[in-house]
Amino acid sequence: MKTHKFLLSEKDIPTQWYNIMADMPNKPLPPLHPGTKEPIGPEDLAPLFPMELIKQEVSEERYIDIPEEVQDAYRLWRPSPLHRAYNFEKMLDTPAKIYFKYEGGSPSGSHKPNTAIAQAYYNKMEGVERITTETGAGQWGSALSFACQYFGLECEVYMVKISYDQKPYRKVLMNTWGAKVYASPSDRTEAGRAILAKNPDSPGSLGIAISEAIERAVMDEKTKYSLGSVLNHVLMHQTVVGQEAVKQMEMAGDMPDIVVAPFGGGSNFAGLTFPFLKMNLTEGRNIRFIASEPASCPKLTRGVFKYDFGDTIGMTPLLPMYTLGHNFVPAPIHAGGLRYHGAGVIVSQLLKDKLIEARAHQQLECFDAGVKFAKAEGILPAPEATHAIATVVDEALKAREEGKSKVILMNLCGHGHFDLSAYQAYFEGQLSDHEMSENEINQLIAAIDTPEAV
Amino acid sequence: MKTHKFLLSEKDIPTQWYNIMADMPNKPLPPLHPGTKEPIGPEDLAPLFPMELIKQEVSEERYIDIPEEVQDAYRLWRPSPLHRAYNFEKMLDTPAKIYFKYEGGSPSGSHKPNTAIAQAYYNKMEGVERITTETGAGQWGSALSFACQYFGLECEVYMVKISYDQKPYRKVLMNTWGAKVYASPSDRTEAGRAILAKNPDSPGSLGIAISEAIERAVMDEKTKYSLGSVLNHVLMHQTVVGQEAVKQMEMAGDMPDIVVAPFGGGSNFAGLTFPFLKMNLTEGRNIRFIASEPASCPKLTRGVFKYDFGDTIGMTPLLPMYTLGHNFVPAPIHAGGLRYHGAGVIVSQLLKDKLIEARAHQQLECFDAGVKFAKAEGILPAPEATHAIATVVDEALKAREEGKSKVILMNLCGHGHFDLSAYQAYFEGQLSDHEMSENEINQLIAAIDTPEAV
Repeated sequence: MKTHKFLLSEKDIPTQWYNIMADMPNKPLPPLHPGTKEPIGPEDLAPLFPMELIKQEVSEERYIDIPEEVQDAYRLWRPSPLHRAYNFEKMLDTPAKIYFKYEGGSPSGSHKPNTAIAQAYYNKMEGVERITTETGAGQWGSALSFACQYFGLECEVYMVKISYDQKPYRKVLMNTWGAKVYASPSDRTEAGRAILAKNPDSPGSLGIAISEAIERAVMDEKTKYSLGSVLNHVLMHQTVVGQEAVKQMEMAGDMPDIVVAPFGGGSNFAGLTFPFLKMNLTEGRNIRFIASEPASCPKLTRGVFKYDFGDTIGMTPLLPMYTLGHNFVPAPIHAGGLRYHGAGVIVSQLLKDKLIEARAHQQLECFDAGVKFAKAEGILPAPEATHAIATVVDEALKAREEGKSKVILMNLCGHGHFDLSAYQAYFEGQLSDHEMSENEINQLIAAIDTPEAV
Repeated sequence: MKTHKFLLSEKDIPTQWYNIMADMPNKPLPPLHPGTKEPIGPEDLAPLFPMELIKQEVSEERYIDIPEEVQDAYRLWRPSPLHRAYNFEKMLDTPAKIYFKYEGGSPSGSHKPNTAIAQAYYNKMEGVERITTETGAGQWGSALSFACQYFGLECEVYMVKISYDQKPYRKVLMNTWGAKVYASPSDRTEAGRAILAKNPDSPGSLGIAISEAIERAVMDEKTKYSLGSVLNHVLMHQTVVGQEAVKQMEMAGDMPDIVVAPFGGGSNFAGLTFPFLKMNLTEGRNIRFIASEPASCPKLTRGVFKYDFGDTIGMTPLLPMYTLGHNFVPAPIHAGGLRYHGAGVIVSQLLKDKLIEARAHQQLECFDAGVKFAKAEGILPAPEATHAIATVVDEALKAREEGKSKVILMNLCGHGHFDLSAYQAYFEGQLSDHEMSENEINQLIAAIDTPEAV
């Protein structure tokens, strides 16, 4: 009988995170202070993050030990399964072998707790009592709520008001884990009050929510701030995914020709691909890596490589990254986790150095791929995950045309149980594609006034 | 380090179902024809079910082989993990060891696909083209939708209208798997049209939905009907759960003193407990088994043992069971899967013979236990599952009072991702308990006019 799933035991959960900084041929440029435009030091980040995470952010050590307490928390849901998608292969009538790593079995239903648990742990160790963060659709906010509950920290989530009103269930999930969730803009911060004074009906934005979360962290010594993607340490925490997958592909007796993952800020993509990319960088392998992004937020495929702010308002350090500009307002697609204007520094450098590729997909193509996948494999994918599925469909059909067998591995980063309103809209024909015109992209890029990254 | 999860590999998935009929000291009384009140034969059931399932319904073979195609489908999500709930033990400050078998990782998020896949397979083998069923909150309807999609069958789900309107997301999930979902009463059946003629705004009921699904099946030779619990073959299909758990408890080096599962129609309870109950029946073990039911639907703890109809209208055979009467209208608690008036025949006989126990819990106690569990173990339990958790809390606290270590195993039958509106209502103080008075119970029982079971 065919083996559908390659299952590890708890002793196979990685005990170290893999830090790709050690193996990059070109290290990323340093972050710059938003005011002085000079490289920043650890002290600039200390009001926001615990020192251990700041150290990880700049570390060039190849492996960093995972604390025992974090390993113990990982054991609540890790190791995650690696599936061979036999039924999906059959549906696509492809000679390609398709594997997927499934991260939807975590408490909050995605890969996000892999870093949330680590971040909550280091904060706890350094005496922090409360963590603030922002969330859009709620995927990251719920992961951090769970992690804070686990380590006995308070959690304050600023949720973009329009999502807070439209998607009440993610809020209820966060409440179940004891988090306090505020619609942003709120009256709890100067940033929020300033917006409300101008527009009491503001629907909010991720940029405003970040400003509120940061302001709350800076105000109080016992409060820090946490980010769910983009930063180096966040990407590194996710490498438990890829390290497990390396072992599981060995169990399956296959090596991927192509590894695919959705791309928002980079942590999803980095988590699965970096342990495989290490083989290219250090063992001369020739695996292809494809980051799947929405056509409506095409920073990797159509953005520019420049220094840019991480937030809309310009409070964060300037980071050297592929960006559409920090003033970019994404179309209201349902893959909320992929609507960020910039890409993490490490992934940006890797793309610049042509060590990875990127591909953009339209929304309808993604939902079509997602529904096909659910029919074949039973799992309802998150809208973010459907972007990787769309790339896999492309490659599987190409394999059929070329009559070539290929091994494709993708990150099925989460389930879509909280996204059924999006599927409903898709079935009812209410969704549309959002392709940016050449002109729009040119205007957007011309408007970026941040420093060149050279 | 502690082991949190006991994980099997695919080769450990059971290859046979365990049929407890072989080991019961007293076999159940036969079902009676609703008209003649005489024992029914296979031919009476043939319009509704494929012959292989009818044979399983009356079989006394101890083990029945699981077809290879069904085993292959099980591999999409089985084996399921068995967890040791260290954090929940710590939260309850109990010397008891608490284990839980987690069935929420299946495509539709509960144990239901274990039988849905088997039923769809046998229908497919016998040339059936379409399966009809009813669903309340949608748990069973979505499992059968997935199973029909898997085997290429059409699926027609009659969903109680009030749930159809209030819980659109379960419907979207069923649609994703290709099922047609109709609000019941519908205009597609005589039963539905008759109700609508009298009351165009009827909110529907499970009884009406059953009548519609059965009518559609009887009308057309290529259409059969499927039930998600109560029947003997359905209970038997679920024993893959308990057989895996027996192996996993061996891995853990423990043997349960108490096994707990939620109780609706019996398949959830039977699935986990029967392979352990076999040890009592054939090896002289002394494990306790507790069925956890809602205080608002207390058929096991306060009902009577009588012949009764499976549906409200009286179309099904009369079954010898613990019942509150087929006219019983349950309070609107959120554990939709536990609101059935009767208990499966096998489980009823076992309770009558004192081989198992039952315990009733109030709604608020259940949600309180569920929220505690989510905080400790990360998994948000389905409202049905919280009933077992409430029993576990009882027993864990008793263990503390008695200063005794005890090993408790429970069936965490599904996640609550589609039940967040219930959690929201709980947090907002909108839920209440529904205890039936002595008087209400007496009136209810006095009104049952079906035959004695002797």
